[in-house]
Amino acid sequence: MRRAIELAARGLGSTSPNPVVGCVILDAAGQPAGEGWHRRAGGPHAEVEALRAAGDRARGGTALVTLEPCNHTGRTGPCAQALLAAGIARVVYAVADPNPTATGGAWTLREAGVSVEGGLLAGEAEAGNRAWLTSVRRGRPFVLWKYAATLDGRIAASDGSSRWISSAESRADVHRLRAQADAVVVGSGTARTDDPQLGARESGLLESETTQPLRVVVDSNATAVKPGARVLDGTAPTLIAVAEDADAAHLEGLAPVVRLPRAPGRGLSVHALLAALHERDVRSVLLEGGPTLAGAFVAAGAVDQVTGYLAPALLGAGPAALADAGIGTIAQTLRLQLTEAVRIGPDLRITALNTPQES
Amino acid sequence: MRRAIELAARGLGSTSPNPVVGCVILDAAGQPAGEGWHRRAGGPHAEVEALRAAGDRARGGTALVTLEPCNHTGRTGPCAQALLAAGIARVVYAVADPNPTATGGAWTLREAGVSVEGGLLAGEAEAGNRAWLTSVRRGRPFVLWKYAATLDGRIAASDGSSRWISSAESRADVHRLRAQADAVVVGSGTARTDDPQLGARESGLLESETTQPLRVVVDSNATAVKPGARVLDGTAPTLIAVAEDADAAHLEGLAPVVRLPRAPGRGLSVHALLAALHERDVRSVLLEGGPTLAGAFVAAGAVDQVTGYLAPALLGAGPAALADAGIGTIAQTLRLQLTEAVRIGPDLRITALNTPQES
Repeated sequence: MRRAIELAARGLGSTSPNPVVGCVILDAAGQPAGEGWHRRAGGPHAEVEALRAAGDRARGGTALVTLEPCNHTGRTGPCAQALLAAGIARVVYAVADPNPTATGGAWTLREAGVSVEGGLLAGEAEAGNRAWLTSVRRGRPFVLWKYAATLDGRIAASDGSSRWISSAESRADVHRLRAQADAVVVGSGTARTDDPQLGARESGLLESETTQPLRVVVDSNATAVKPGARVLDGTAPTLIAVAEDADAAHLEGLAPVVRLPRAPGRGLSVHALLAALHERDVRSVLLEGGPTLAGAFVAAGAVDQVTGYLAPALLGAGPAALADAGIGTIAQTLRLQLTEAVRIGPDLRITALNTPQES
Repeated sequence: MRRAIELAARGLGSTSPNPVVGCVILDAAGQPAGEGWHRRAGGPHAEVEALRAAGDRARGGTALVTLEPCNHTGRTGPCAQALLAAGIARVVYAVADPNPTATGGAWTLREAGVSVEGGLLAGEAEAGNRAWLTSVRRGRPFVLWKYAATLDGRIAASDGSSRWISSAESRADVHRLRAQADAVVVGSGTARTDDPQLGARESGLLESETTQPLRVVVDSNATAVKPGARVLDGTAPTLIAVAEDADAAHLEGLAPVVRLPRAPGRGLSVHALLAALHERDVRSVLLEGGPTLAGAFVAAGAVDQVTGYLAPALLGAGPAALADAGIGTIAQTLRLQLTEAVRIGPDLRITALNTPQES
């Protein structure tokens, strides 16, 4: 199963709106006979790839798969049927499929006399598919907020200069995050100050070409993105989110515009933005917004993961990584769970998850 | 030598103003014959303890010692003479003694025909003696600034509430830092807001009772520490630093007061404070000051190590860990070297060193 989880990870960034899935087929004697992973939406599912690689050796064998085999006929046939047709005798999966249209594969297989077990290495497989699973469970894209700051939490000096707080290694690592996300979101402040291109370059991903995320600028008043902005360079799709009453005539023909309701005192409604992205098959968002936009996401309860690149440096002045998130006293602090701290060049990358008590 | 470094560490917090030192004696056949460490100032040096344990087996043997043996007669005799008297044939030390009054032990031993080598595991031994070595080299106490903050660098919420940002495990770990420091320094803001006791409790240190650090309050205008303050509770010595022109009559009989020059716009002169502490045999300072005092220390170039307890939490508002440090633009950022990141309960403890290019 650990091998299947490794295979699944190769699909990160290119399977959306589908999950990443890996599968290993063992023959009747328990020897590895074939493996596969879901490479891209519309392409063969992991089970089908692995069965193809195993050929006749699949008969009487075992399928180890990171996600419960699907039961529905989408762009490809249901995997449960493919496993039955290949004569698989036993299926072991890690995580049950929470998707209401695809679930039921385990039941179908059991009805047909296949031995089915779930839950093997479920924690690891769940972590590998976190964005997709969170997205299905919450009915909106998974949101990872990324920031780079000094030890004292500053993202720029008091004069506004910020190039660079974090190291070249950290900035390269961000391109890996972008390549794994379906969309990258920034606010008008970042668009105006940095004129970012928001592409995923040199991500170091093997096995597939880098998939470019959808570039999203939250430009409530339609004043930040101007003709000639790097985000409009045509290397990847772009979407400009503006308020319902904004004058966005200058963007016509340059980029698609989505009109969203304003949130009281906070730019656009974060929930409306995430719903609009979900409709466009976006299952994971990398939020690279500045402190204001990040504060709006935190206030909306819409940050699932925080990844901070912490430079071992001190400034003592300048804007903090996060601005007003509607938290006024210590009891309201948003508490996360630290899951990783790893060195990236001279910096430290910290990962923390928002895992509500109720889930 | 690794064993000698472990032995040396047992003295942390109780040897000041002396360094920590560990020593292992091997007999002429290369077998361990005795070990010792410097337990407290005024007590026997590590070499003397180890020679005592080895007895006659030291003759013709080797002494492995973390610091170059001293050459001067202080409260105890010079170790170089003790090693010669015991008939030691070979001395291997890790770090040369930078102390002008003690240096020269290696020369004395070589003159007497002993084989002497320096530099073995020097990096590790140096790290174990960092506070003392830095203090000797800079002629002032080593300063470790400690803070506890959220991921976005806040030490309190916008209403000022701050109990607790960090976990009970982190707060217990701070008591270990206090026990290893000669002095704990806070500013008037912390004294006024938190009324801290600043003792070292439950430090978990073995081998010796917890040594209480000198408690120092920087109370420029002599308005923060009032009779009844917990810092005056008599469980450990206390020193109140006030400005030369401050009215400190109410402190008479309660705690020693040191009068220091003011720094323009910044409370007291940090250099004068450190000089006053150095005179009092303080070799290491744990700076637990709030953002203002920490900013003054950073501006004075007087922070040697930063230890941050980072809670995986977000606030979005409230004071930052570090206030004005005289840094106005990104090029002036104080860059440190990250040396450790370790989990303490749910938090992350980050250690970074200020290692100037010139050293």
